[in-house]
Amino acid sequence: MPSAENNMDASTYRVVIDCPDQVGLVAAVSQFFASVNASILEASHHTDVKLARFFMRHEIAANSLKLNHTDFKQAFAQLAQKYDMRWSLNSSRSKPKVALLVSKEEHCLNDVLHRWHTGELNCDIPCIIGNHKSMQKYADWYEIPFHYIDFSNKTEAFAHIEALIRDYKVDLTVLARFMQIIPDDVCQRLSGKIINIHHSFLPSFVGAKPYQQAYDRGVKLIGATCHYVTSVLDEGPIIEQEVMRISHSDSSDDMVRKGKRCEINALANGLRYHIEDRVIVFESKTIVFN
Amino acid sequence: MPSAENNMDASTYRVVIDCPDQVGLVAAVSQFFASVNASILEASHHTDVKLARFFMRHEIAANSLKLNHTDFKQAFAQLAQKYDMRWSLNSSRSKPKVALLVSKEEHCLNDVLHRWHTGELNCDIPCIIGNHKSMQKYADWYEIPFHYIDFSNKTEAFAHIEALIRDYKVDLTVLARFMQIIPDDVCQRLSGKIINIHHSFLPSFVGAKPYQQAYDRGVKLIGATCHYVTSVLDEGPIIEQEVMRISHSDSSDDMVRKGKRCEINALANGLRYHIEDRVIVFESKTIVFN
Amino acid sequence: MPSAENNMDASTYRVVIDCPDQVGLVAAVSQFFASVNASILEASHHTDVKLARFFMRHEIAANSLKLNHTDFKQAFAQLAQKYDMRWSLNSSRSKPKVALLVSKEEHCLNDVLHRWHTGELNCDIPCIIGNHKSMQKYADWYEIPFHYIDFSNKTEAFAHIEALIRDYKVDLTVLARFMQIIPDDVCQRLSGKIINIHHSFLPSFVGAKPYQQAYDRGVKLIGATCHYVTSVLDEGPIIEQEVMRISHSDSSDDMVRKGKRCEINALANGLRYHIEDRVIVFESKTIVFN
Amino acid sequence: MPSAENNMDASTYRVVIDCPDQVGLVAAVSQFFASVNASILEASHHTDVKLARFFMRHEIAANSLKLNHTDFKQAFAQLAQKYDMRWSLNSSRSKPKVALLVSKEEHCLNDVLHRWHTGELNCDIPCIIGNHKSMQKYADWYEIPFHYIDFSNKTEAFAHIEALIRDYKVDLTVLARFMQIIPDDVCQRLSGKIINIHHSFLPSFVGAKPYQQAYDRGVKLIGATCHYVTSVLDEGPIIEQEVMRISHSDSSDDMVRKGKRCEINALANGLRYHIEDRVIVFESKTIVFN
Repeated sequence: MPSAENNMDASTYRVVIDCPDQVGLVAAVSQFFASVNASILEASHHTDVKLARFFMRHEIAANSLKLNHTDFKQAFAQLAQKYDMRWSLNSSRSKPKVALLVSKEEHCLNDVLHRWHTGELNCDIPCIIGNHKSMQKYADWYEIPFHYIDFSNKTEAFAHIEALIRDYKVDLTVLARFMQIIPDDVCQRLSGKIINIHHSFLPSFVGAKPYQQAYDRGVKLIGATCHYVTSVLDEGPIIEQEVMRISHSDSSDDMVRKGKRCEINALANGLRYHIEDRVIVFESKTIVFN
Repeated sequence: MPSAENNMDASTYRVVIDCPDQVGLVAAVSQFFASVNASILEASHHTDVKLARFFMRHEIAANSLKLNHTDFKQAFAQLAQKYDMRWSLNSSRSKPKVALLVSKEEHCLNDVLHRWHTGELNCDIPCIIGNHKSMQKYADWYEIPFHYIDFSNKTEAFAHIEALIRDYKVDLTVLARFMQIIPDDVCQRLSGKIINIHHSFLPSFVGAKPYQQAYDRGVKLIGATCHYVTSVLDEGPIIEQEVMRISHSDSSDDMVRKGKRCEINALANGLRYHIEDRVIVFESKTIVFN
Repeated sequence: MPSAENNMDASTYRVVIDCPDQVGLVAAVSQFFASVNASILEASHHTDVKLARFFMRHEIAANSLKLNHTDFKQAFAQLAQKYDMRWSLNSSRSKPKVALLVSKEEHCLNDVLHRWHTGELNCDIPCIIGNHKSMQKYADWYEIPFHYIDFSNKTEAFAHIEALIRDYKVDLTVLARFMQIIPDDVCQRLSGKIINIHHSFLPSFVGAKPYQQAYDRGVKLIGATCHYVTSVLDEGPIIEQEVMRISHSDSSDDMVRKGKRCEINALANGLRYHIEDRVIVFESKTIVFN
Repeated sequence: MPSAENNMDASTYRVVIDCPDQVGLVAAVSQFFASVNASILEASHHTDVKLARFFMRHEIAANSLKLNHTDFKQAFAQLAQKYDMRWSLNSSRSKPKVALLVSKEEHCLNDVLHRWHTGELNCDIPCIIGNHKSMQKYADWYEIPFHYIDFSNKTEAFAHIEALIRDYKVDLTVLARFMQIIPDDVCQRLSGKIINIHHSFLPSFVGAKPYQQAYDRGVKLIGATCHYVTSVLDEGPIIEQEVMRISHSDSSDDMVRKGKRCEINALANGLRYHIEDRVIVFESKTIVFN
């Protein structure tokens, strides 16, 4: 419970990299950090021996640095090039813009908005987009623009959504129980920038009515999965999963209630990990430094 | 996932008893139920062999009965007397009136209101009472009267609260992170009708700042406890507990975030169990038919 | 912590039924119990409203009864017939005979034997059957006959196994990580009397190398499933499941270690539930009164 | 599931340090590693901002180094001195010698021995010490010397135990349900080298009969705690904790059964963390890099 974490004006830089593994890599990175006087608050490493690939995330106290954000980034870019890194360097001050897409189910929407409102999610929410007007009330209460999309024409509907995403300069689109299948081309354009909460413990029960499928199979736990959206339905890289125990005595209502709890928790964690630059997608999987 | 549970107009009666154990007790009760044509949807029994005491809860389809609520109750009263039962017989149609008491923390308030709003909690919420005006906004959105209580004079404040409880005919008072110690006499008058959410895994870390206590002791899980309030602080019968794993890398913010999750879940379950007549308090403990 | 449960000479009868649901059923059963002076220690009910089917398990103190086992059974049979029940009535004194089938993995074998040895599993273990001689040492230490089966001819091998099951009058066959697919006809002959521990959270990762499959998919929890064996591989009714959280930092060894823990716990519970007559199989699923 | 982890002949060095935090520390350490060509398989950092203290663990492929163990250690010692480090540098080839102390309960003993036997615990077990002769059988089966200690004279008994610890050059003493309170002077002499498994979720239910205490308080989860032993009973730094859900329907036997599962898992993890140099004790708490 270190008190410094409570100091809200202490912004940080988050440096996230992955690159081919080699001896001296950590030394080079940490020497660079030392050379700019970086005070490291959190450091996470992972070596995938089989892939010979290295993954790393640092969180650095911004006020410890001798350089500003731009100069820091420029200096790091040289190092990154030398080691063939994929990398990002974000300030905790630049909040990502997160758009929420919803249908009729309101539990995920309510939870995400509440966490955002109380400061747990370090993002902006420029808009809520829905195919049911009933969600307007949440948008109003939290004073966020709400856009109703008519899905009688699917192509137009998704064109409308993509236009909104462009106009609001959205960094991440969250399908917070948005019960529409995203077209391939949209998936590809938003690749790595769109996450979904699926109401099953994937890869079990892909597709529609996962609770019914779970009931029919007689599983003893149900779950939910937060994952990046790809063209193949429910096959994207998994960020977070949650499960809860059920039994024969759980009614349909009980299963839905428990399932909602899983969805809320998996989405809340998955979303936070993404926002805090804790997720690296590599091929079909994620490294999550949580 | 039986479909009948989804049939929202199908009200039920909940018959809850406890009494000295004896052979023939279950037969007598179930024969009575058969004699009035009761279709039993859910039945739970518990025998405490040491105490020679029997605990039982039945949920009965109201539309299966030959009698109305009043006649059913009257008929059951005779049986109850014969076996020296403590008992209750409630219809799922008569929703208990639940008052929420809050201070500044809004996560439990938001969660309870959301579950109530979406029909998960089968109760009415006639009023929200708070010692901080900032909670008014939740009350407004959900269109529930909010009463601000000034605590500069504690005695008057609690007199005011008790008057509100009386006026609103409140059945259950919930301390949804209400950071005031309830006076002995109020505890006694509300005995069995007031529940609290304490932000530790009791009996560890009684009293103030449980997260700091947990941090100082270096425990590897933190938790929350939903319990009935008695005169002895944090000593009342426990209804529900939740825990989450923590580690040295959890900051103060992380612990609070995880702790809130525990509080929300323990309170949501504990409150639902009480509302659905699933809790029997016997001496210092609870039987929970969940 | 009722002391009576500790009284090891207090044997019980376990009456398990399922039948079409109807009003008066519970009354009829409990009146019968009262008429023979049965002291009910544990009672569990379940109504499947959709199927209109009723499931029930009672545990009765044997020494409270006016009748002996045979007479009790005979008397109950009349009631059972009237209500078209599938039923069993077993004494806790007649321990089922459980045969263990193993390959090379020893963790499940060690755990089951230890629990049996310390009295947690109320069964006899007349034999251990294996296709690797290395498991002999466990059999020796626990003084249980070990039968090595040569699998160079599969048909003969299974004929040998079935002969052993017959000769030892085995009630339940446990595949404690027995890495051979059971032929259809054997599955059918042992229907309801053979359980398996599969090292994944079914229905995910059916078949071989489930940990590799889980690794490839990038799931965030792995699990194990204890289920009845049917002709369709890994499709039988599920008794118990366990899961554990994993992350990118878990090596192959870590996943195996965590997986073993899941397997041990799921098998231990599933086996105990079966032995204590806590499982009712209905169609493709189980009701587990635990 | 990187294949290299499966390569059993690939030994590693584990470098564990803690020291006052300062900018450049990580750079200095990682530059040193690079200078000796160290291939880092696993790296874990923790900064305690409040204490301004830094904690770090590295696991290095031994065969990547230009130096042997002795030279590596000597070279590192200079760096360590410069930064005022507490440190250790162990090879995975030098297995610590772990002595097991037991009374009558055999579940922890059985589990630790099984994990050791199957290679999960990378240690030697030179002796088992017990105050009940019945544990001899485990020692015999695993071919480990067993020493029975007569506790009619406590002082002599502990002198005997300490002599055995000395003679066997024991690195870690494990109280695997050893139901004797360790004298203060022994605690001090073995400080940091003796761990206990306590059968409650500490700090709840210190001392004797924790399950009875848990039963009396009516908690909804029970647990177990693996901790270093200090002079104050059950107050030492916690390494690992486990919990399981219980309810009113759990008998004494059920609680003991579930509690054993917690004990086994907490001890197995805690012991492994210690053996693999994953635990740093600082003041009254632990940092566990797991």
